[in-house]
Amino acid sequence: MAITAVGSVALDSIETPFGSIEHVLGGALSHFALAASLYDTVNMVAVVGTDFPERFMQHFRARSIDLRGLQVREGATFRWGARYHLDMNTRDTLYTHLGVFADFHPTVPAEYRGAEVIFLDNILPQLQLDVQRQTDEVAATDGSTRLRALDTMNLWIETTREDLLRVMRGVDIMLIAEEEARQLAETPSLRVAARFILERGPKLLVVKQGSYGAVMFGADGSFFAAPAYPLEDVCDPTGAGDAFAGGFLGYLASRLTRAGRVTETDYRRALIHGNILGSFACEAFGVERLLTLTPEQIAERYEEFVGFTHFEGSWRDAPTG
Amino acid sequence: MAITAVGSVALDSIETPFGSIEHVLGGALSHFALAASLYDTVNMVAVVGTDFPERFMQHFRARSIDLRGLQVREGATFRWGARYHLDMNTRDTLYTHLGVFADFHPTVPAEYRGAEVIFLDNILPQLQLDVQRQTDEVAATDGSTRLRALDTMNLWIETTREDLLRVMRGVDIMLIAEEEARQLAETPSLRVAARFILERGPKLLVVKQGSYGAVMFGADGSFFAAPAYPLEDVCDPTGAGDAFAGGFLGYLASRLTRAGRVTETDYRRALIHGNILGSFACEAFGVERLLTLTPEQIAERYEEFVGFTHFEGSWRDAPTG
Repeated sequence: MAITAVGSVALDSIETPFGSIEHVLGGALSHFALAASLYDTVNMVAVVGTDFPERFMQHFRARSIDLRGLQVREGATFRWGARYHLDMNTRDTLYTHLGVFADFHPTVPAEYRGAEVIFLDNILPQLQLDVQRQTDEVAATDGSTRLRALDTMNLWIETTREDLLRVMRGVDIMLIAEEEARQLAETPSLRVAARFILERGPKLLVVKQGSYGAVMFGADGSFFAAPAYPLEDVCDPTGAGDAFAGGFLGYLASRLTRAGRVTETDYRRALIHGNILGSFACEAFGVERLLTLTPEQIAERYEEFVGFTHFEGSWRDAPTG
Repeated sequence: MAITAVGSVALDSIETPFGSIEHVLGGALSHFALAASLYDTVNMVAVVGTDFPERFMQHFRARSIDLRGLQVREGATFRWGARYHLDMNTRDTLYTHLGVFADFHPTVPAEYRGAEVIFLDNILPQLQLDVQRQTDEVAATDGSTRLRALDTMNLWIETTREDLLRVMRGVDIMLIAEEEARQLAETPSLRVAARFILERGPKLLVVKQGSYGAVMFGADGSFFAAPAYPLEDVCDPTGAGDAFAGGFLGYLASRLTRAGRVTETDYRRALIHGNILGSFACEAFGVERLLTLTPEQIAERYEEFVGFTHFEGSWRDAPTG
């Protein structure tokens, strides 16, 4: 069973205080798919140019990533360049060359439309709406359990807010970075921002907090929070949020495949998987670490998470004094 | 059975986007003592001027706070004024009038010297050294289990670094805000900063992360992390870090009193108590919320913490597919 995801595949050039790489596999969907495919099949809906290196196609094929929805168009692949500051928390975009992405018209292959999880990764909300329409048709006819999720960014909040709000009305889960949640809701209070978002479509809001972990708000008033994995060094945070989404939705997809439904327990576990995949993504440049990651390494880090977050449920022992 | 703590007692004037207060009870030690005294007796070592209002003395006397070490000197009490920005995360100090605090010579009453917990709250490291000398004499002769803890701030890291490093050599626990840990160790990596600090005296480092909670590193390689309590609104964050220290050390002191020792389980619970007291402190101006706080409300929030942080220890159910 599968996740159908639309988003960007790009060639990234990244400079950090510790090194740099040029024209490597990038784009939110690449990070997402390489993470999520450790859990379930990922159907890609995206576009690349004829300059897209065959070896990057091989990275996808080596995993359970279906490429029938990946269009190859005459022209240049989307290219993005950025430079990180010394603290690795802020970066400057050096250039954005859209290439064939400028005229991208996503077409969801018929085989993809019935996937259990639909992920509208961070791209122009109009394109997200387009994919939403194509996949909603199928859901209406077969009626099986499915999760529709959305990610976005500051650019769309600033430039195409109304379209973004329209996409939100048709999703179950929204994933968003903390500053962007505040920006979208125009409030400094994260709880107020969560209520704003949960009143506009999503039943679950997942807030990504970078090196502080993630929190999750349910429309039913539920709340869950988990710290991040304490990395010794961050090599390159590019794509960590996308890998987070991959771990989160990948885990949920695998549960839907196994059990036909997801529970509150699964959502909590999924958030831990998001934190885990996000942490691995930071350990090497670009998608490098995701390429070598194994389910055993994920399981090991999950055990570590349990170890460094759990505490006694009773706030003190029986009085002895 | 008690905590002996040295620090500042002040009269604060605070402006936030939502209101302002003038000349209210403030100073790191006031917040600390009102929080910690919900768990155990607090012996105060501090100085105020003859202008210090009697009603503030009553706040201390209403709790198990011993005032024999609180000097009252001819002159003005330390006064501090600050204005918070709209996001409540940053503030400008408007004035600092040291008053009688400028000539403060802490004298630890003989009855205070054998306390189980010694807390060198955030003041000039030279004064911390002075108190350390006075209390260490007793420890040397009686040899009972005791915890010596330290807090500090950016000002002392910048201006009296060598004295601060000297104080660190003689403590068991260091509490510090995240930015200050990085500043002290001159590194962007929190793990590297933790190692730097743990090589210089403290056996346990507690890093306060404000609205993101707290993490704890042990010299034995142990690690624990917990998110913050998700407050709807922050009324006034002044003293939240001091209330955190009060919850953390107060809980440990109560365990030492009951059980004669503290375990890893206790340290983890203590960190949750720190987060709880820090969250309550933000709910009203100055020390207001700490004055009305009850053990039952602490216990209730502890249960909430368990509820929104725990997750399944196994990363998936037995395969069914």
